[in-house]
Amino acid sequence: MPEFKPRDAGFAARVRDSFGRQSIMDLMGARLTRVDPGEVEIELPFRPDLCQQHGFFHAGVTSTIADSAGGYAGFSLFPADASVLTVEFKMNLLAPADGDLLRAVGRVIKPGRTLTVTEAEVIVVKDGKAKACAHMLQTLMCLQGRADMPAAG
Amino acid sequence: MPEFKPRDAGFAARVRDSFGRQSIMDLMGARLTRVDPGEVEIELPFRPDLCQQHGFFHAGVTSTIADSAGGYAGFSLFPADASVLTVEFKMNLLAPADGDLLRAVGRVIKPGRTLTVTEAEVIVVKDGKAKACAHMLQTLMCLQGRADMPAAG
Amino acid sequence: MPEFKPRDAGFAARVRDSFGRQSIMDLMGARLTRVDPGEVEIELPFRPDLCQQHGFFHAGVTSTIADSAGGYAGFSLFPADASVLTVEFKMNLLAPADGDLLRAVGRVIKPGRTLTVTEAEVIVVKDGKAKACAHMLQTLMCLQGRADMPAAG
Amino acid sequence: MPEFKPRDAGFAARVRDSFGRQSIMDLMGARLTRVDPGEVEIELPFRPDLCQQHGFFHAGVTSTIADSAGGYAGFSLFPADASVLTVEFKMNLLAPADGDLLRAVGRVIKPGRTLTVTEAEVIVVKDGKAKACAHMLQTLMCLQGRADMPAAG
Repeated sequence: MPEFKPRDAGFAARVRDSFGRQSIMDLMGARLTRVDPGEVEIELPFRPDLCQQHGFFHAGVTSTIADSAGGYAGFSLFPADASVLTVEFKMNLLAPADGDLLRAVGRVIKPGRTLTVTEAEVIVVKDGKAKACAHMLQTLMCLQGRADMPAAG
Repeated sequence: MPEFKPRDAGFAARVRDSFGRQSIMDLMGARLTRVDPGEVEIELPFRPDLCQQHGFFHAGVTSTIADSAGGYAGFSLFPADASVLTVEFKMNLLAPADGDLLRAVGRVIKPGRTLTVTEAEVIVVKDGKAKACAHMLQTLMCLQGRADMPAAG
Repeated sequence: MPEFKPRDAGFAARVRDSFGRQSIMDLMGARLTRVDPGEVEIELPFRPDLCQQHGFFHAGVTSTIADSAGGYAGFSLFPADASVLTVEFKMNLLAPADGDLLRAVGRVIKPGRTLTVTEAEVIVVKDGKAKACAHMLQTLMCLQGRADMPAAG
Repeated sequence: MPEFKPRDAGFAARVRDSFGRQSIMDLMGARLTRVDPGEVEIELPFRPDLCQQHGFFHAGVTSTIADSAGGYAGFSLFPADASVLTVEFKMNLLAPADGDLLRAVGRVIKPGRTLTVTEAEVIVVKDGKAKACAHMLQTLMCLQGRADMPAAG
């Protein structure tokens, strides 16, 4: 694993602020549990209203936290006055997301001035046992000179 | 576009029943608006609790309805006693999902006994104008002999 | 299907020149058979030295012409002084590429100033019958101000 | 990294035999340089006839060795009487493949009875310095009871 040096010393606060503005995280009950340079972790406890038809976490829910974990892993390495945009991502669903907790860890594979590539692993914990349930590969875009602020209002 | 002949005449009721058991759709407020053989449409009105940090629909929300639209497009062609599993999908986010309504249309590209490939287009409607905001390519697995029922309990 | 207006009237010659410099096309025997604004077709006749272990076209060979068909579909809409770079692509292999000829058609889904999204369909023709064998979804980058020229030397 | 136990003690010979039947590898000059359980390495020296328009390895060439490296990583864990099929793969091109040698390392992420998920990293070596140039995420299918033999004839 490469070690990354953030360009903005305030990267962790910047990630936490932005995550705090993602209202979907609040709706689902997701928590930002770790912010390191180029690596971010999000956890989501099970709730019966986050499910697909068999009572497991919906793949879209898994994708939501994987996309944000990868996105903020990239964002942690951006300059202070930049925004992040997901260009695309691909999810492989390795096993049913059957458990009490999802944990997504996003990591930067290749940082870049314009485009950054990340991956995320998602595990599901059931009765204390962790199991890989998804793997994501993602492309991000760095929008320089547009700080990640809420729209004025 | 190829026309598909469903193997199960009750395909539409089967899709609606299964969709009705996806609790995340209820949490987000998504509606199943059309079920044709090999083609399924899902709509999701905007709500401020479905957003990313800039106040647009989160990419994970877009993915959730795209995954289900593609999944049920495939499922509509499955035999009556089969379940559907998403193997993987890839989303390209074409534009910010900034608008009043998301509409995902999933279509079967290639049906198969074990694996089915689908695509989905997602448009966002703003002030009555529609704009493509995402494109998905997805692989599904057909689990024969396992009707799509809720877990017993 | 949207209709695209090229920004450079000489787009077709520009695509043909660039294709002519892709030495791998010559090694494999691929031909550029159609160049329209936002849509490009490449054909590749079967040869026994283009195969995987079962004697069919190798998925990498299919990918090579799909990547170029999508790439040149995007490039056809670029300004005259720009280069194209593939950011990423995803291939679904729908059926074994067993036949006499591969034909890849690349099409622009969403043109953009920096990023362009395309898709490609690949069919394989056997005894005069065509069959879809692959489907690609691709992201391209437009490098403005860097004409697509060979390295000096 | 998980360690994998092959189900077939003769896995390495089985991989080498199958690779030897991939005629495209011979055309391009690719060599199978390592076969471990769940991990396979392929190298490809530069040649001027393997290029895109700027004189670097074509992305399709990179994909060809990445697809085979991932495919044989999965195949190494299959039972003796099984064949491998690529269902789909996604490539992120991290940097121009500008150098003297490509090296693709494929690794199994998640083995399975029917589907196996792998990843591959491709590096390019230039003047003795290695640089990551591509990252792949792939789904394979195991066809049981169909040994990986050439078509009779």
